[in-house]
Amino acid sequence: MANSNYEYVKSFEVEDRLMPSTWIVVRIDGCHFHRFSEDHEFDKPNDERALNLMNSCAMAMLEEFPDIVFAYGVSDEYSFILKKTSQLYERRASKILSLTVSFFSSVYGFMWKEFFPNKKLKYPPYFDGRVVCYPSAKILQDYLAWRQVDCHINNQYNTCFWALVKSGKSKMEAHNLLKGTQTQEKNELLFQQFSINYNTLPAMFRKGSCVFKDKTSVQEVSLVLDPLTTGKGRRYCEVQRGW
Amino acid sequence: MANSNYEYVKSFEVEDRLMPSTWIVVRIDGCHFHRFSEDHEFDKPNDERALNLMNSCAMAMLEEFPDIVFAYGVSDEYSFILKKTSQLYERRASKILSLTVSFFSSVYGFMWKEFFPNKKLKYPPYFDGRVVCYPSAKILQDYLAWRQVDCHINNQYNTCFWALVKSGKSKMEAHNLLKGTQTQEKNELLFQQFSINYNTLPAMFRKGSCVFKDKTSVQEVSLVLDPLTTGKGRRYCEVQRGW
Amino acid sequence: MANSNYEYVKSFEVEDRLMPSTWIVVRIDGCHFHRFSEDHEFDKPNDERALNLMNSCAMAMLEEFPDIVFAYGVSDEYSFILKKTSQLYERRASKILSLTVSFFSSVYGFMWKEFFPNKKLKYPPYFDGRVVCYPSAKILQDYLAWRQVDCHINNQYNTCFWALVKSGKSKMEAHNLLKGTQTQEKNELLFQQFSINYNTLPAMFRKGSCVFKDKTSVQEVSLVLDPLTTGKGRRYCEVQRGW
Amino acid sequence: MANSNYEYVKSFEVEDRLMPSTWIVVRIDGCHFHRFSEDHEFDKPNDERALNLMNSCAMAMLEEFPDIVFAYGVSDEYSFILKKTSQLYERRASKILSLTVSFFSSVYGFMWKEFFPNKKLKYPPYFDGRVVCYPSAKILQDYLAWRQVDCHINNQYNTCFWALVKSGKSKMEAHNLLKGTQTQEKNELLFQQFSINYNTLPAMFRKGSCVFKDKTSVQEVSLVLDPLTTGKGRRYCEVQRGW
Repeated sequence: MANSNYEYVKSFEVEDRLMPSTWIVVRIDGCHFHRFSEDHEFDKPNDERALNLMNSCAMAMLEEFPDIVFAYGVSDEYSFILKKTSQLYERRASKILSLTVSFFSSVYGFMWKEFFPNKKLKYPPYFDGRVVCYPSAKILQDYLAWRQVDCHINNQYNTCFWALVKSGKSKMEAHNLLKGTQTQEKNELLFQQFSINYNTLPAMFRKGSCVFKDKTSVQEVSLVLDPLTTGKGRRYCEVQRGW
Repeated sequence: MANSNYEYVKSFEVEDRLMPSTWIVVRIDGCHFHRFSEDHEFDKPNDERALNLMNSCAMAMLEEFPDIVFAYGVSDEYSFILKKTSQLYERRASKILSLTVSFFSSVYGFMWKEFFPNKKLKYPPYFDGRVVCYPSAKILQDYLAWRQVDCHINNQYNTCFWALVKSGKSKMEAHNLLKGTQTQEKNELLFQQFSINYNTLPAMFRKGSCVFKDKTSVQEVSLVLDPLTTGKGRRYCEVQRGW
Repeated sequence: MANSNYEYVKSFEVEDRLMPSTWIVVRIDGCHFHRFSEDHEFDKPNDERALNLMNSCAMAMLEEFPDIVFAYGVSDEYSFILKKTSQLYERRASKILSLTVSFFSSVYGFMWKEFFPNKKLKYPPYFDGRVVCYPSAKILQDYLAWRQVDCHINNQYNTCFWALVKSGKSKMEAHNLLKGTQTQEKNELLFQQFSINYNTLPAMFRKGSCVFKDKTSVQEVSLVLDPLTTGKGRRYCEVQRGW
Repeated sequence: MANSNYEYVKSFEVEDRLMPSTWIVVRIDGCHFHRFSEDHEFDKPNDERALNLMNSCAMAMLEEFPDIVFAYGVSDEYSFILKKTSQLYERRASKILSLTVSFFSSVYGFMWKEFFPNKKLKYPPYFDGRVVCYPSAKILQDYLAWRQVDCHINNQYNTCFWALVKSGKSKMEAHNLLKGTQTQEKNELLFQQFSINYNTLPAMFRKGSCVFKDKTSVQEVSLVLDPLTTGKGRRYCEVQRGW
């Protein structure tokens, strides 16, 4: 009953090392979170508790995987940047992807009650993930800018949408009213109809959240991250977790 | 602030479709579970509650991902077989890997208290995963045989090891006594010193656990699975979960 | 001046082993051969010398790379099938692809004068190539059928097209006359206007060419190849080359 | 006989795009060239005609594939660097690899008689190839330095080896005399026993050959290539070919 007769099946495993000397980004994204947020009655358009839970998961990630130098999150999505020189799991994509997504998912459930003390988790939430490599700091910046512009566009739309819905419009009506509107028009709609000054809404809603490991790593990655994280949008969090 | 300037960063994402018409196997494996099992005082050599928790996670997997036709688990490891024709997420490896591992991890924490009602989860458990494709039923069988032989070898060793330790040997002494012994010798040691007939120990410990979706899918995959699952080792579980 | 300081650059090379136990197909295809065939005044619609040169290159391939069990060619394209168990260059895709395409290209120029004794090669012809793996004999058959149907469709069209052009039509007129015609109509056009019975044209034009290494390998692969190569279309060539 | 029934076989082709914004290097290497150089009686340790044939092939490559900005060759090996922004064949690795290797091989045979007018090509030479991407100019420099140091080490060894053999030593004796010697010792051996000042041997033998497309592209890539190509080792060749 020696195992050696069957070990040839290991030869079907594929080597999947990521290109050395490139920035590794793991992006994690909630699966079916539209439904999940409804089933758990998240505040609309933003649930501060849910965002802080995501931020806490991200902080736990930086503690568990020291090669992560920075994380950027928005809504039910978080991007984790591993340093260019990382040798985490010999840069094997499957290992990095599966372990980070698994850990994040597990922490989310584990910390749920801390952020939603009066709301029972109805079923297990889960996330998809992907790994992408970027060969230069400039392109990594553009990646982060891409996610942050997405945050802005979605948040501004959702802020208008839910203001309209809360004011009595149907979802369909709200959708139709917003179709084709530009940034400026949306801001005016918010201001004129709802007395909301978009630019004074919480930065975490408008700009997303950042997590750095510590002051030193901020210095190291400042070239990459400055454009994103200076100014009001910056949410600086030193990790101090410990279960 | 149009997003289109940055969208080029998506071109760095790699297409990772798995070869069509091959069996997709996702193998999930506990990370740092040696420590985790000690920190949570699992019974040794096998903790029935922990195994049943793993089995419950596997059953939830079959329900969530209908393309999984069969699962085989041993210790803190589970293999999930997707049917050859599966088009789950267009067979994209990252999607399949991240979602299955994330869901499994999340379910593990979610169902913990059902199996360990008196034991608090001290920190979030997590798992690694990998995806491997097999081009024929014969090789898939050999894959399953490989895992099952591994189960046998490890379990027999662990049964002897913990019997010796519980009888007063140190772990080092137990290890040294077992070094180089063959299957037959281990069985005799168990029988003569501890009156344990190895072959009468629970099949779940000796042979691992199987999960099928339903009787129909067993028929469909019988060609593949028969050698593994006929006879005493077979643990047949119809999924009937619902959160 | 030790080389070891620079050897890290090898870590950027990517492992590209092809899945074990699958049929490896290398398809080679003439690059810019439309122009090449005009510049070298190939007969239209088929140049027997050019096809026989391709066949000779294929025969040389089977001799140079013994793992090739079968080859199928049409026009300026040739598919080479390596046996499922091949360990050629440890199944590294780049090695297999580059060496086979390079050898084929080199032989093409080397043997040119044998098939075109009175025509000087005006510039170096070259080919692209790709490697594809197929997990089953059934799918490999379908691959070959795909190429053979393509051969039929193209050859029938070209036979009509050049008959019309040689009869005085412009290329544009010929093209327009054929647009939307079905197989049966094309056969009737050939027969009624040009007294050509399509089915009596040389099998090599209508069905393509096959190369087997020897009678034994035909037996071995008969399951795969029978549907393609039985009957009139079969061109059986034992390799007897030697430079 | 519609082809659409079989077209699913195309789904087995694998997408193999190279990472954007990285330098693409194609390295081509003679296959069985030890034997080939003996069968064609190349001068030892360096055959100027053979090197110039390789250089001519490289020049033809730069003309045929305009995205190649630079090439570096030594012995029967040549590296071609495509610019970072190249979109050649949508950066598909198989296309780039197969077409470049095929073209190079074809040119080698095509131009043979120009460099060896009195020596018939006995059989078709061929080459292997690989594609590697480098994310930064610095690492690309190190790649080129790696090849150039290799050139130096091999050439110095071969110069000593063949001097010894031509002086009457057997190949085994020559090999044993050189075993373990350092650079300085080899230079002294050459100078004292054979009155050869290694540093005055032709730069092409000691340093390899470079090909640039034109003066402009030299400017563009100067950051990358300067360390390699300044000084005596530089062989600057403007391409002026045309069949």
